[in-house]
Amino acid sequence: MTSSQASANIGVVGLAVMGANLARNLASREGNTVAIYNRSPERTNNLAAAHPEAGFVTTETMQEFADSLQRPRTAIIMVQAGKATDAVIDQLCEVFEPGDIIVDGGNALFDDTIRRERAVRERGLHFVGAGISGGEEGALNGPSIMPGGPAESYETLGPILESIAARAPEDGTPCVTHVGTDGAGHFVKMVHNGIEYADMQLIGEAYDLLRRVGGLEPAQIADMFAEWNRGDLESYLIEITAEVLRHVDPETNAPFVDIIVDRAGMKGTGTWTVQTALSLAVPVSGIGEAVFARGVSGRTAQREAVRPTITSRPEMPVVDESFVEDVRLALYASKVIAYAQGFDLILSGAEEYGWDINPGAVAKIWRAGCIIRARFLNRIADAYGRDPQLQSLIADPYFAGEVAASDAAWRRVVATAAYAGVPAPAFGASLSYYDSLASDRLPAALIQGQRDFFGAHTYGRVDKPGAFHTDWSGDRTERRTDA
Amino acid sequence: MTSSQASANIGVVGLAVMGANLARNLASREGNTVAIYNRSPERTNNLAAAHPEAGFVTTETMQEFADSLQRPRTAIIMVQAGKATDAVIDQLCEVFEPGDIIVDGGNALFDDTIRRERAVRERGLHFVGAGISGGEEGALNGPSIMPGGPAESYETLGPILESIAARAPEDGTPCVTHVGTDGAGHFVKMVHNGIEYADMQLIGEAYDLLRRVGGLEPAQIADMFAEWNRGDLESYLIEITAEVLRHVDPETNAPFVDIIVDRAGMKGTGTWTVQTALSLAVPVSGIGEAVFARGVSGRTAQREAVRPTITSRPEMPVVDESFVEDVRLALYASKVIAYAQGFDLILSGAEEYGWDINPGAVAKIWRAGCIIRARFLNRIADAYGRDPQLQSLIADPYFAGEVAASDAAWRRVVATAAYAGVPAPAFGASLSYYDSLASDRLPAALIQGQRDFFGAHTYGRVDKPGAFHTDWSGDRTERRTDA
Repeated sequence: MTSSQASANIGVVGLAVMGANLARNLASREGNTVAIYNRSPERTNNLAAAHPEAGFVTTETMQEFADSLQRPRTAIIMVQAGKATDAVIDQLCEVFEPGDIIVDGGNALFDDTIRRERAVRERGLHFVGAGISGGEEGALNGPSIMPGGPAESYETLGPILESIAARAPEDGTPCVTHVGTDGAGHFVKMVHNGIEYADMQLIGEAYDLLRRVGGLEPAQIADMFAEWNRGDLESYLIEITAEVLRHVDPETNAPFVDIIVDRAGMKGTGTWTVQTALSLAVPVSGIGEAVFARGVSGRTAQREAVRPTITSRPEMPVVDESFVEDVRLALYASKVIAYAQGFDLILSGAEEYGWDINPGAVAKIWRAGCIIRARFLNRIADAYGRDPQLQSLIADPYFAGEVAASDAAWRRVVATAAYAGVPAPAFGASLSYYDSLASDRLPAALIQGQRDFFGAHTYGRVDKPGAFHTDWSGDRTERRTDA
Repeated sequence: MTSSQASANIGVVGLAVMGANLARNLASREGNTVAIYNRSPERTNNLAAAHPEAGFVTTETMQEFADSLQRPRTAIIMVQAGKATDAVIDQLCEVFEPGDIIVDGGNALFDDTIRRERAVRERGLHFVGAGISGGEEGALNGPSIMPGGPAESYETLGPILESIAARAPEDGTPCVTHVGTDGAGHFVKMVHNGIEYADMQLIGEAYDLLRRVGGLEPAQIADMFAEWNRGDLESYLIEITAEVLRHVDPETNAPFVDIIVDRAGMKGTGTWTVQTALSLAVPVSGIGEAVFARGVSGRTAQREAVRPTITSRPEMPVVDESFVEDVRLALYASKVIAYAQGFDLILSGAEEYGWDINPGAVAKIWRAGCIIRARFLNRIADAYGRDPQLQSLIADPYFAGEVAASDAAWRRVVATAAYAGVPAPAFGASLSYYDSLASDRLPAALIQGQRDFFGAHTYGRVDKPGAFHTDWSGDRTERRTDA
């Protein structure tokens, strides 16, 4: 193939399920001609043969792939995150030319994306790390896409991504925006996944409380979730929770949820979110508890060793029907906190890494295509629209009001869980976070006093500026240490 | 100086406060002659002049330092963690010879220690990363020391470290042991600091509840802590808490704790502990909440933005005198959990990195010299003595019984905090962790069902082995995916 035969406006490298589906999605949109490449040509040819309607331009070498693309060439890499990604980037850099665009659509850690963007830029090409959410189904029918990289590349890339992205049900806008430079896209995708962890854990706790304290059966709880899905909590995760809870195991006729081993897996993005937040000193305690809860669930030997030693369990508190609405409100308030913490992390990351991230735009592109899609996100976009400098989601009058309206129920649920012995770590952490922000004074003052006592770490005074140290082992006089 | 003049059996490089105090401690013990070196010779000479009783061998070049040491040469580096440590190691490797021992007594990240140990070993020398706890005072009078590195080097190093370590009040044994190879010492020191974060946060929550819910004044709470320090909670941190709370600001006559800005600083080891635990999927939620709580306290602008939007706060619950004892029991139970999580992390790290760590020996060397020293640690040593394969501290009959005895009070305190709007994140996280381990079934089953629904992540079945996937978008039949 010579460059005069360049017939495709976009290429996809890596044709496992996600890549194949994304390529099909691209090919299905008017104006797109899609070149495809895979390390094993068999997969390339199989995909083209299975989907003649796509009109794929098949290529067997990287050179052929490059030659098939119109300039500026644009290629989306859909291979395993890590070394495979680095290898493909290197190969593309060999055959691409200045101005061409390499997109990594995998789940890369934003640190790696920052490094790769710099390396590719030095070779005169554009590199865009793009978070893509929505799984296999989203890749095929419309994902939520979070591209980073140079703003300039978005002029070429934007229209292509907009053609395949999910569209918000409210206004039909495509769920894609240029999030920020270099690693911003993958950073935001990482936090998306962290919020997803919190969302799922909160739903899990709500289910567990309704079942163990409320005494409801999975099918009844499925009905509640289906009902909740018509209100403020409307979201994909609430919807599929109803589906999973309603499902009956065909083999045993038991509720399906009772047949599943209670060990939740994880693939790392939740862990990255919390580790990154810790590095930035951003408290994401709800997400943290969600990741830890999956960790606890996987410690089978420990669970089996501890259970028999706990011989007495608390009596189950008696609740009435109002408990269901209490749990709904607790879930809602805790979910607001999870998003408040997540957006705090996004904006802290933006400050740390110099990204000009528009939080309202992020909320908008999460409204469809991705796992955490929810009606709720319109409200978040509104909040940041009202005040782009908003310090916290719960400082917004709307969300402050929503949480206040849930306040009493939320407290009853956390207290009831404690009395019942039903773990609700994410509900509890969210409430504690809220109460910490609400407190005039925190016991951090005592902690800082302890630190000064044993380590001379000094402290500030509420009545004047400066850093001070008390001579604890001597006469307890105070001296200023920073003057 | 020629090697025939080698007169010192131990050397110290880096003479800031920690290094100077450690050198003085070493010199004060019979049989030790201490060579000292600092980048600026002025500091070396000043230290020797200020402490003629120490009989320091002063040296002005690394070569002179090496020549002053008997073989195998043993040098303790006490410089800033990071690049300064690497630079000094390089310099020592130039002048030392095979068999000589380089000890890093700083707060290095265990990953760095593993890397350094490998590099120094390749040059034929021994490298020991040693955690040293106890601050300036401990360095001078007797710290708790956690050396890693090759077991062989402990033959030379052990007696020297034993001469300067703190001694356990119960049996006079020195608070030092060979923790494990390469980075084991710094790993254990890191977890020590993580537990310290949890301990301090739990004390802070207890204080806050006694004050805001119990209505007690700082001086009264100081008396309670002093009283608690005569029972199961006896520990250095409880002791100094009483001191800090009793202290009156000489300038304003206000309780000192009310004068301190309520923003707790941190230097990184707590963060490392939680990040490492996340990498190993070990749930250290109590330590996590402690680190997050310091993070919240430091987010001043956010706290100031959120507070005015929260217009209605819950009514303070009415409690009687029994609340004080409830808080004490909640503190004790939560503290057991913090240690359970910390030791879980130590043993998980040992498994991951191939260290043969004796958890009982670790508990014993924390009994004196370090910040978390506590009577309690004897019980932990006993528990691991009874069962070296103990899966969790709370699987031990003694601790299971202690927690059971605190159970009802613990639940009342967590519930009361929720109702009162007083944040108790570490109390709550600890209770949730306990209840998670106590639960027959966790809602992780539902989460795994959701994961299978949206991402085909598969699940296990409770009734047979294998991995399974349900065709959620189709006819909902199940197929085995791992056969």
